[in-house]
Amino acid sequence: MTTEHQATSTSERELVLTRIINAPREKVFRAWTEPELLKQWFAPLPWTTPVAETDVRPGGSSLIVMRGPDGNEFPSRGVYLEVVENERLVFTDAYTQAWEPSEKPFMTVILTFEDVGGKTNYTARARHWTVANREAHEKMGFHQGWSQCAEQLAELVSKL
Amino acid sequence: MTTEHQATSTSERELVLTRIINAPREKVFRAWTEPELLKQWFAPLPWTTPVAETDVRPGGSSLIVMRGPDGNEFPSRGVYLEVVENERLVFTDAYTQAWEPSEKPFMTVILTFEDVGGKTNYTARARHWTVANREAHEKMGFHQGWSQCAEQLAELVSKL
Repeated sequence: MTTEHQATSTSERELVLTRIINAPREKVFRAWTEPELLKQWFAPLPWTTPVAETDVRPGGSSLIVMRGPDGNEFPSRGVYLEVVENERLVFTDAYTQAWEPSEKPFMTVILTFEDVGGKTNYTARARHWTVANREAHEKMGFHQGWSQCAEQLAELVSKL
Repeated sequence: MTTEHQATSTSERELVLTRIINAPREKVFRAWTEPELLKQWFAPLPWTTPVAETDVRPGGSSLIVMRGPDGNEFPSRGVYLEVVENERLVFTDAYTQAWEPSEKPFMTVILTFEDVGGKTNYTARARHWTVANREAHEKMGFHQGWSQCAEQLAELVSKL
């Protein structure tokens, strides 16, 4: 007898954004990994990103600070789990550094950059540990926020 | 103004077992990574380990099934986060495979195998996301259970 309980599927705990970006995927990957580029698009305006640190390797840490219009700052720490240059980037806030569990694991982000004739088929998946967190993320404005940021990202890479 | 809240330290959420094992660390590493060896020591007797699957690479999955004396089976799935052959092995139950969040992230295990004159200084750290989970793990018998298993492990590798 096996006592494994019925799990909710990954798709029930996932939010997905896809977008075709009119630039080669190498540039989109750079915009996600180079701090000076990341700061220019990461937060949905009028929010800004005053701090970005990215140690882009499996087990490497990231620190991103977003600043709201009222001046409040919100730091996010994470760790990269998988890095395939120009193709794929996976990170999570479940660790603050390798391998220190964070206070509250919220999501794992899987980014894929697919080449489609010189443009980029960009997919961002946010996978959560619970359905409640997926719902909370949706209510926080995932779709609107990540779309706006993808727009800012596309605008930036069109100028690189 | 920064709104990062006060975190509990990693050490408050960690349980540690250390032991000198009278065998070279290569053998201890094998006992943790080769399924046919793992099955021989992993569960504290009279529990057994009928199933062990280990895809030992960062992002690789593991499945270990333990069977109690009453025949009930308890499967545990996990993913390896870091692999340094013969030296270090890190895995977590926060994912069931790369990168599908599990239903309930409980712990990350960091194993280190240090060579001390042909013997192995073996350290197992179980890091939890919450103090409550660390306490629960302690009450479930971490110290007694992991000590007994380390004993079984030491006994096995002495015969390899």
